[in-house]
Amino acid sequence: MAFPKTVELVEVGPRDGLQNEPQSLPAAVKVELIERLAEAGCPVVEAGAFVSPKWVPQMADTSEVLANLKRRTGVRYPVLVPNEKGLERALAADVREIAVFAAASETFSQRNINCSIAESLARFAPVAERAKDAGLPLRGYVSCVLGCPYEGVVPLAKVTEVSLALRQLGCDEVSLGDTIGVGTPRRAAEMLSAVAAQVPVEHLAVHFHDTYGQALANILACLELGVGTVDAAVAGLGGCPYAKGASGNVASEDVVYMLDGLGIESGIDLAKLAEAGNFICEALGRRSNSKVALALAGRAA
Amino acid sequence: MAFPKTVELVEVGPRDGLQNEPQSLPAAVKVELIERLAEAGCPVVEAGAFVSPKWVPQMADTSEVLANLKRRTGVRYPVLVPNEKGLERALAADVREIAVFAAASETFSQRNINCSIAESLARFAPVAERAKDAGLPLRGYVSCVLGCPYEGVVPLAKVTEVSLALRQLGCDEVSLGDTIGVGTPRRAAEMLSAVAAQVPVEHLAVHFHDTYGQALANILACLELGVGTVDAAVAGLGGCPYAKGASGNVASEDVVYMLDGLGIESGIDLAKLAEAGNFICEALGRRSNSKVALALAGRAA
Repeated sequence: MAFPKTVELVEVGPRDGLQNEPQSLPAAVKVELIERLAEAGCPVVEAGAFVSPKWVPQMADTSEVLANLKRRTGVRYPVLVPNEKGLERALAADVREIAVFAAASETFSQRNINCSIAESLARFAPVAERAKDAGLPLRGYVSCVLGCPYEGVVPLAKVTEVSLALRQLGCDEVSLGDTIGVGTPRRAAEMLSAVAAQVPVEHLAVHFHDTYGQALANILACLELGVGTVDAAVAGLGGCPYAKGASGNVASEDVVYMLDGLGIESGIDLAKLAEAGNFICEALGRRSNSKVALALAGRAA
Repeated sequence: MAFPKTVELVEVGPRDGLQNEPQSLPAAVKVELIERLAEAGCPVVEAGAFVSPKWVPQMADTSEVLANLKRRTGVRYPVLVPNEKGLERALAADVREIAVFAAASETFSQRNINCSIAESLARFAPVAERAKDAGLPLRGYVSCVLGCPYEGVVPLAKVTEVSLALRQLGCDEVSLGDTIGVGTPRRAAEMLSAVAAQVPVEHLAVHFHDTYGQALANILACLELGVGTVDAAVAGLGGCPYAKGASGNVASEDVVYMLDGLGIESGIDLAKLAEAGNFICEALGRRSNSKVALALAGRAA
């Protein structure tokens, strides 16, 4: 087994996680979560999204969160923006890194962001240009890379095409998302290999949901292919809108436990990370979706 | 990725799973569970244990379970026996395959079965001899192969030594158990490689607990080394006596989902397997520990 020496974990709990939790939390709780994650050593913490508060009320207070956040030197706090209006709000909030979102499935794109894939990329072009002018690094998400809730199988050629388009539009990093968590390791490896043939693996991240329990195995398969950036959400925050009661993002604690065991450096303190997870689970009144967090709590009890 | 073409799943839910659930179930429920698992295509279903009802009340009715079980042709129903007395009860119940249990950690052996590793192997010798005389295949469990709740790290040399001893005593198969679920893929692969250098991999099975969420990733790493037998428990039955509230055995549904995705034939019908899991979770009044089962239920809802 050949693995990268270090992995950068992109903590997406405060955004991708919380936006898929049923309840909205006070901004102060989100600020504390983000600060705890940074304190635990997370190098990148996705801090929020400037999206429509009508569709995503959980993210309505992103400006307030950012205004109150004590930012740590060396930690990045990207924010998701869907369009130029979102970018303006991000710039006003002194955001220093942005993320945009596309899908590898036409139907998913239509249902999720109400436009075709091509339209979404066209809408993103001026955002990317202005962000680049402002010197902001860009991250691009591609969703449905291993399956679509409406179309089923998604051709690898489509995943590659959208990834390459995002890269050409200026994305420093393209995050490949198994939005509905249906992927298994061989397919995940085939997908990553296909994309990496067009977009060098140094510019790729993997983003697995644990809906079918496959996320860590998929991450393992992708690490073997040299991917060095892994998205995860503390406590496995979030859920799956397409399977009520199912798991959401892979839990950061479980990823870090595996990385530690593999001898891969992430710079994250697992105990502090688990404390951040316990904090947010208490705030949400829910059980953690991290098996590591449950085991650590059970050992201490 | 090179994988075996087929994998034999050893369903341990009715024994290793249920004996770690807090409540005892009626024999009729266990019979139905075992029959449903066989009906789903499980080739091997561990049906019970002839152990002390004082220490393991959950298994006290194994004779009754076996007497009422409609056995399917081609399906194996091994039963755990700790000593000659257990073997006699097993033979009386027309058991046709038995399993014995040893540990790779001295302290665990003392605390769990109240004797040293050497004593446990000596106690097992006449059991093996009589079982062989009766023409019964033997399976040997080695526990704590990736860590011990009392000793911490367990030397690979000790795991290999105990595995080889079980094999030499007549075990057709040696199941390598990460009893407390602490292992990660690289370590799991190193452990399997070390043992396989002494006991050919065709005679080895892997048995992972999902305490820290690592089980599927560990199984993946071991499949890449050619292991063809994987233990799992439907619904992830059981728990971890060393971490209250933590997960137990890896869920069979999640393993089968991964095998299906990898193109590895197990002969098991995932939907029927998940139904068996739902049945036993309802009987226990607990939530499934299988993410696949939760996702399938959520999609149907």
